Amino acid sequence: MGERKTAVIALGGNAISPKSESDTIANQFRHTRESLAAVEHLIEQGYNLAITHGNGPQVGNALLRVELARGKAPILPLGICVADTEGGMGYMIEQSLQNRLRKQNTSRDVVTFVTQVIVDKDDPSIQDPTKFIGQFYDEAEAKQLAKENGWTVKYDAARDSWRRVVASPHPRKIINWQPIKQLVDHGTIVIAAGGGGVPVYPDENGDYEGVDAVIDKDRAADILGQNIEASELFIVTDVPEVYIDYKKPTQEKLDKITIEELEKFHAEGQFPPGSMGPKVEAAISFIRHGGEKVVITSIEHLKDSLTGERGTHIIP
Amino acid sequence: MGERKTAVIALGGNAISPKSESDTIANQFRHTRESLAAVEHLIEQGYNLAITHGNGPQVGNALLRVELARGKAPILPLGICVADTEGGMGYMIEQSLQNRLRKQNTSRDVVTFVTQVIVDKDDPSIQDPTKFIGQFYDEAEAKQLAKENGWTVKYDAARDSWRRVVASPHPRKIINWQPIKQLVDHGTIVIAAGGGGVPVYPDENGDYEGVDAVIDKDRAADILGQNIEASELFIVTDVPEVYIDYKKPTQEKLDKITIEELEKFHAEGQFPPGSMGPKVEAAISFIRHGGEKVVITSIEHLKDSLTGERGTHIIP
Repeated sequence: MGERKTAVIALGGNAISPKSESDTIANQFRHTRESLAAVEHLIEQGYNLAITHGNGPQVGNALLRVELARGKAPILPLGICVADTEGGMGYMIEQSLQNRLRKQNTSRDVVTFVTQVIVDKDDPSIQDPTKFIGQFYDEAEAKQLAKENGWTVKYDAARDSWRRVVASPHPRKIINWQPIKQLVDHGTIVIAAGGGGVPVYPDENGDYEGVDAVIDKDRAADILGQNIEASELFIVTDVPEVYIDYKKPTQEKLDKITIEELEKFHAEGQFPPGSMGPKVEAAISFIRHGGEKVVITSIEHLKDSLTGERGTHIIP
Repeated sequence: MGERKTAVIALGGNAISPKSESDTIANQFRHTRESLAAVEHLIEQGYNLAITHGNGPQVGNALLRVELARGKAPILPLGICVADTEGGMGYMIEQSLQNRLRKQNTSRDVVTFVTQVIVDKDDPSIQDPTKFIGQFYDEAEAKQLAKENGWTVKYDAARDSWRRVVASPHPRKIINWQPIKQLVDHGTIVIAAGGGGVPVYPDENGDYEGVDAVIDKDRAADILGQNIEASELFIVTDVPEVYIDYKKPTQEKLDKITIEELEKFHAEGQFPPGSMGPKVEAAISFIRHGGEKVVITSIEHLKDSLTGERGTHIIP
């Protein structure tokens, strides 16, 4: 099956837990099933495929449960919480996709890998964590919890609240890229690096050790794609296309854009760090490391992005 | 690597969370590392290997956290909790084993699969659940929770308490046995069916659907071994050997025993349902379906079981 193109698709949190709905597991399952109808089009077109997914609401809930059970059940470090969501969400996505594929009489398996991702211990983000995570506190409570748990806490101006902050280091390598590639090349659909994967670094003895941080899932998808030599990367987010001058009179939709043009817009500050920025950076990195195409679009427009009708298409 | 023997090893909960210690994650990691020193002997002997593991304390804690967060975070069905523990525990076991193997300069990868396991919807256990799980309640509280959540609750005489009971159906097939076998045959060490795997059944539309139940991990290890055509099954438990007439004056240690002898002892009721029974039944099933050897021993005696010095060795 060497003639098949390999793609990585990164499913945004909205494809699993839409913000407009209560996040019961039943709703998550239903919405995941709907989202996978779109993913199925890639499979119908014969792509070899790896899938990553966000886990924001799920890991937030996991941390909340850990905190509410303090003194009654063991405290779980962030890395275990991320790995837990790789298990639970992977199961949900895997089963939903298997059920769809069984109806098509395809023999392609769907598997979920729990995934560790290597980061630099000296990543600047680890020295100065800025990613807000988990619950909202007043200042005194936040500082007390920081002392008790070794957290870093900061004031979240957007929410007028104190919160835990963690690092979001850049992913360097997917630890199990070789077995993932082996299966993907064979036609198996592999769900991996869910929630960006569990960040680990090699300690002074050469042992991998977890770090209390989270990895941006689009950046993880880029590295996964590079490691398994995917030619295309699909970043599924809330909007059908990327815009420049977003919400200004000069707003312009990007349909097809070369990497040079995109880098120029990014250098101009067109893509804010908290939203489109990491996606654009993941796209640039993927193309600069040999990728042939990146598509940024919404789950609703994923099908039409395959024919080029919708989506932002980034090419070398 | 076709000349290698394939084994499945089922790690008892005690190999990860010893009852004598507080179950902090640091303790679990430390103890897991120690246990994997024993597993490494199988790898040194050149076995292809799949690993299953128990999750009793971990899934109990997961259910407790879900309950304590009721109204504040979504309720997770049991299947999601099991899948979550496959993620978190898989990560812990995988990383610990990788770190050991890296020191040996072996190139063998260690991966973790989130695993669904097919059960019969009509399994007698589903009609009459008997496996106690989760917290302890008084009668009124238990019955109220049963009403609110659709649980079955029963009186646990051993603990003088009311508890939730769930089914423990027999596993029929590992859904992803083919990709697991592909990797195991290649020399990759695959952690799969943790906690027995997530039980699912095909519904009237042919869709796999989760069921609120747990699968005995030794039975899951038997089916996994059958599916991937393993020749040996190691069941790691709290005791170095199996006994007949346990704690009676006529007590006798079983060193090496044929399947016929073991079946005879089992028919006599030598192996209680709550402890050695399911392990002996898994062993019988594995041999009756073509397996060459089952070893039941403790993590401390696993190494010596490889030379036949310790452990109960069950042969056709």
